[in-house]
Amino acid sequence: MQISKLGEFGLIETLKKHAPVSKAVIKGIGDDAAVLPYSQSRYLLFTTDMLAEGIHFTRRMAPQAIGHKAMACNISDIAAMGGYPTFAVVSIGVPKALPVRFVKEIYQGMERLAKAFNVSIVGGDTIKSDKIVINVALLGLVEKKNLVTRSGARPEDWIFVTGALGGSLKSGHHLNFTPRLDQARFLVRKFKPSAMIDISDGLSGDLGHILKASGVGAFLDYHLIPRNKGAALPQALNDGEDFELLFTLPAKRAYALMTWQDRQRLMYFYPIGTITDNVNKRPDAKSFAHF
Amino acid sequence: MQISKLGEFGLIETLKKHAPVSKAVIKGIGDDAAVLPYSQSRYLLFTTDMLAEGIHFTRRMAPQAIGHKAMACNISDIAAMGGYPTFAVVSIGVPKALPVRFVKEIYQGMERLAKAFNVSIVGGDTIKSDKIVINVALLGLVEKKNLVTRSGARPEDWIFVTGALGGSLKSGHHLNFTPRLDQARFLVRKFKPSAMIDISDGLSGDLGHILKASGVGAFLDYHLIPRNKGAALPQALNDGEDFELLFTLPAKRAYALMTWQDRQRLMYFYPIGTITDNVNKRPDAKSFAHF
Repeated sequence: MQISKLGEFGLIETLKKHAPVSKAVIKGIGDDAAVLPYSQSRYLLFTTDMLAEGIHFTRRMAPQAIGHKAMACNISDIAAMGGYPTFAVVSIGVPKALPVRFVKEIYQGMERLAKAFNVSIVGGDTIKSDKIVINVALLGLVEKKNLVTRSGARPEDWIFVTGALGGSLKSGHHLNFTPRLDQARFLVRKFKPSAMIDISDGLSGDLGHILKASGVGAFLDYHLIPRNKGAALPQALNDGEDFELLFTLPAKRAYALMTWQDRQRLMYFYPIGTITDNVNKRPDAKSFAHF
Repeated sequence: MQISKLGEFGLIETLKKHAPVSKAVIKGIGDDAAVLPYSQSRYLLFTTDMLAEGIHFTRRMAPQAIGHKAMACNISDIAAMGGYPTFAVVSIGVPKALPVRFVKEIYQGMERLAKAFNVSIVGGDTIKSDKIVINVALLGLVEKKNLVTRSGARPEDWIFVTGALGGSLKSGHHLNFTPRLDQARFLVRKFKPSAMIDISDGLSGDLGHILKASGVGAFLDYHLIPRNKGAALPQALNDGEDFELLFTLPAKRAYALMTWQDRQRLMYFYPIGTITDNVNKRPDAKSFAHF
């Protein structure tokens, strides 16, 4: 079978079965970042993302934006666990004929964002390659009490997103988005989300990850889903690379969050639906079986 | 300027200048792994290596061996710091038409070695790409008292290597080598090397890294350099990818190591020369100025 037939998630599932996992691992493959032992009060978070020329970016794009994105999607993963980023290593594959300026500007974009989020780039690897390829591996920390995974959503929890969805690839938002770290840290400190994920595959797919990991179903109110200008509902549901956070809150805390937000007179968090029992146990909710 | 003119080390030097480094970083870019805060008695080590199809391997090679190498060169970096590896994340770029079997076997090779060295693969990223590209980022730990960097070599230290050098790419040794972790851990516990590095760029280049970081020079006894079958002196000096360890020991401990080794009636560590004053201060040692 070829990769194109199995698909990325099929591949990850297949590989997961093989991965040897020590008992020291608190959470391995299958969340936004791995959760590892660190200290009495904190866990170490560990994540990685690879971007390839021709797939995620082209040379016609601003190199700073490419570097920005490579760092930002990793910071977004750490944010989705409730933590904060600390140290990164960066690998870059560089074609021989590429102007040095282009590589420098990729790094500049990466470093500007790293600085803004208190990330130190502490190492890396530079190799020759036919096309540009960038890999960032990022560490973070999270207070044990603030850790949020994909698996804590419970029936009657409210579902929220942190911003408008859809059309990210078309609008260029995927290249210049700000990882929702401040929002995530605010949430874990004040409102304790029961589950959280960053929207990289698209709302529909990433909500699916939470539902599967939590063993629950969901109802979405399509009218409530905030959409980017020009994005219709299918785009808001299925386009990837929004890098907003998707999280769930028990009803009482959801109500408190809405009240807080009302007082601010600003909209940071958008309620879009509720968690239900596992759809497999509810023949009356077939329309959500794809979750 | 193009990358091909600046070269990899030129590029790393250029980028190093830009990297923002927090005060929490004990050692950043410029050693085999970054050294980061962890606990009262231990440091966290963090390293990464990228391998690209057509540069480091081809599809005609055994996929298990490719996976083995991707993990092994990272473990070798952690060993060179005196530490032991713990957790890895793996990114892999996969062409659409590649058989799934090929990718599975790359992972199998990686996981077999990971298991043998108590490394857990805790996460990763799978993307589409035009050619196969693999990135491993690896964490490790080292007791503070066992940390060895490149910068501790002092005049009159002896220089050792852990095995025969040269011809690694030709013989295929670069694909199936065993990282010298056991040797490194033995050394840091019993003999405390003053400096250590793994030989990935070639003896000449990697000794150069130690000399530069330590501000010293060196005399090598070319007759003593252990060579692989078929490798002449230039190959032993300059071929890369041997993944043996190169380390220095103060004379007294070097003598103790030789005595210990004599008693074993086996050769694990080969003395190949001595550290001298900085060659820049010694006009009579010009022949080593390239170090």
